[in-house]
Amino acid sequence: MGHLFAPHPRGGGKQRLRHDVKRLLYQALVGMTLAVATAAGSSPATAQTQPVQTCALGNLRLESGAVIPNVRMTYITHGTLNADRSNAILSIHGLRGNRDAQTFLAGPGRALDTERYFVIQPDTLGVASTDPSATTSPTRSGMNMNFPRFGIRDMVQAEYRMLTECLNIRHLVAVTGISMGGIGSLQWAVSYPDFMDAVIPIVPQAHATRQTNFIWEAARQAIMLDPKWQEGDYSANDPPRRGTGIGINIQNAFGFSAESLAEMFQDRDGVERFYATTTEQLGNTTDARDWIYRTWAIVDHDIAKTPPFNGDLRAAARSIKARLLLMPNCFDQLLTPGESGVMEVAAFAPNAKVVDLDDIAGHSGNSTPRSVTIIAAEVRDLLQRVADGRPGFNGPRIPRHWNREDRCPN
Amino acid sequence: MGHLFAPHPRGGGKQRLRHDVKRLLYQALVGMTLAVATAAGSSPATAQTQPVQTCALGNLRLESGAVIPNVRMTYITHGTLNADRSNAILSIHGLRGNRDAQTFLAGPGRALDTERYFVIQPDTLGVASTDPSATTSPTRSGMNMNFPRFGIRDMVQAEYRMLTECLNIRHLVAVTGISMGGIGSLQWAVSYPDFMDAVIPIVPQAHATRQTNFIWEAARQAIMLDPKWQEGDYSANDPPRRGTGIGINIQNAFGFSAESLAEMFQDRDGVERFYATTTEQLGNTTDARDWIYRTWAIVDHDIAKTPPFNGDLRAAARSIKARLLLMPNCFDQLLTPGESGVMEVAAFAPNAKVVDLDDIAGHSGNSTPRSVTIIAAEVRDLLQRVADGRPGFNGPRIPRHWNREDRCPN
Repeated sequence: MGHLFAPHPRGGGKQRLRHDVKRLLYQALVGMTLAVATAAGSSPATAQTQPVQTCALGNLRLESGAVIPNVRMTYITHGTLNADRSNAILSIHGLRGNRDAQTFLAGPGRALDTERYFVIQPDTLGVASTDPSATTSPTRSGMNMNFPRFGIRDMVQAEYRMLTECLNIRHLVAVTGISMGGIGSLQWAVSYPDFMDAVIPIVPQAHATRQTNFIWEAARQAIMLDPKWQEGDYSANDPPRRGTGIGINIQNAFGFSAESLAEMFQDRDGVERFYATTTEQLGNTTDARDWIYRTWAIVDHDIAKTPPFNGDLRAAARSIKARLLLMPNCFDQLLTPGESGVMEVAAFAPNAKVVDLDDIAGHSGNSTPRSVTIIAAEVRDLLQRVADGRPGFNGPRIPRHWNREDRCPN
Repeated sequence: MGHLFAPHPRGGGKQRLRHDVKRLLYQALVGMTLAVATAAGSSPATAQTQPVQTCALGNLRLESGAVIPNVRMTYITHGTLNADRSNAILSIHGLRGNRDAQTFLAGPGRALDTERYFVIQPDTLGVASTDPSATTSPTRSGMNMNFPRFGIRDMVQAEYRMLTECLNIRHLVAVTGISMGGIGSLQWAVSYPDFMDAVIPIVPQAHATRQTNFIWEAARQAIMLDPKWQEGDYSANDPPRRGTGIGINIQNAFGFSAESLAEMFQDRDGVERFYATTTEQLGNTTDARDWIYRTWAIVDHDIAKTPPFNGDLRAAARSIKARLLLMPNCFDQLLTPGESGVMEVAAFAPNAKVVDLDDIAGHSGNSTPRSVTIIAAEVRDLLQRVADGRPGFNGPRIPRHWNREDRCPN
């Protein structure tokens, strides 16, 4: 199509997706790269991993009352914890990620500057760990579908216990995360309002939407339709690869925008070749049971249901004490910021700023080079203000051009 | 969520979806109603059907060179053909529809006023007909997956032959259609530029997008994953209902907007109950093989590939002689008007007008009471101008506020 009608948005997203971005997005789609988080999270690491550390928590009592026994959380760290244990940042991965998925945000000069900060990246509850005695996922525990369902608040509680009981950290500079990790970050702000100075949820939700319910139910149904699903008792050697790959691609169809898919694929044949060659491969990168449990956590979520808020989202938002830097993407078709309460939280939290990533790649546009640059600029500025004891944020807290009755800024 | 943040768009779509609209959308989702076209088309009729008529076309040679033998097209009509056979309008149904699906547009005082016009509603190629000798679909022909693949141009050619060979109609007042029928309408304008005065594609595409490829490939994969699929040779009594229902719901997740799904479902349990109770029912309303073939036609489509345009969309658009009233919906997440060339066609066709339906219900918002009222007003005005021999359209041909580099008007 001609440039006149090239599907470009307003503002910062107007430039064409260049070749490197196209390649990175494609790698994210396939789930092969660390550098770019995929839809709702990142793929497993293939390189540059830090040593895995383990924290034994014993029993983990869930909000439902169920108990996961013998919980051993795993995590990696970057940088050095200072003497008074006051320079720690928690960085939480997305749905398809693990402890390695957000390493691209951490390092000298990056958003999470490891020359100043000690960055902790856990495996969330529900991720099979490499620790042979870990029991934090349905598959790893051997319980399969008898593993209790858990929620985002349970993930956050496990992280809290890990930080306090194993790392003896009583205060964080910041909590951040992308997608499912962004959801967890916002929950952190409500669950433990005094525990951190700043919370930086990237493409989050405040609560699930009926569309996210609808999408992931289709994905789970596709997995369970695979004859190899076996009611969840499939063997490690012969998992439901096709069903899982289809389920992930249902998510991908929303997680990558129409524009980014047009950039990645020349024609219909390209799309069908992608399915033919990668469906089972995608199914191999993700454990079906564990992924299903994590999607249940997402579609059940609502920060307003945190006691004592009893469904009152505005009250939950008002309770947040940390500086809240919300980075949604108004082109996000998977976790739409309007319907999922993110904009409402921004309006009612005492000290919040919205930075719309405004990226035409949609949900997965959270990790394009342009987005990573914007994220780094905003995060570094905020953290410097925290370090200097200066109040608030640089720039308007909610962009002046934001139309609250609208989905996106004009 | 509070009204301040209710997810309402600009302009005409600002009012809340009221209860009746919610109910109609829900019925459309389930596929049980004639009154509201579902995503990419309408569900089979349950009442008020006209007598089915049949047109024997003998062999139908497809663009691919393959031949469908003994083609018997079926259709219904509304109103009366005048003596000089000059008052006919062709109205083409969407992906899940059949000859009855667009009856809600036809009638005295409706968009297609049956006191003046003779409205012809065919079963497109690929729809199992009630005619016992029909052979126009994989299932009806008994050929199952050996039936040749056909395209949108083949559907249009079959309709052209039906009109000319059986009804002796040499000119139409208008061709219109919704979704897949809108795609067919636009193809009519390019294939037979002298055959009609007006073409009115509603939520169409000029060509498939990589996103539509991606969505329907996921849907087809889900169907084929169902153990009852049997390589397409399933029995009529035991079809792959679950896979088909999941496939249709993958489409529904895009065909209904985040906002409309939020209106239809109270909570996650509601969504999961919907799947539990309707997945097989949805699979029962749609023949899997025939639906798959029609989705192949959509994802293969490009009006620019009509000979002799050789991929040049602008040249194809410039060749259109009819008055072209394009009615996309900028909130459409299934057939996005920007990426699918609709806006480019609007700019290069000699006599085109765009009316954005601007409906927050997304693709399926083509048939809400509000949209039907807008469609009727625009269509009736256009047809009156044709009848009076007046040029052009009322109102700006492309809304003045349309920003061509953008997806939606501001």
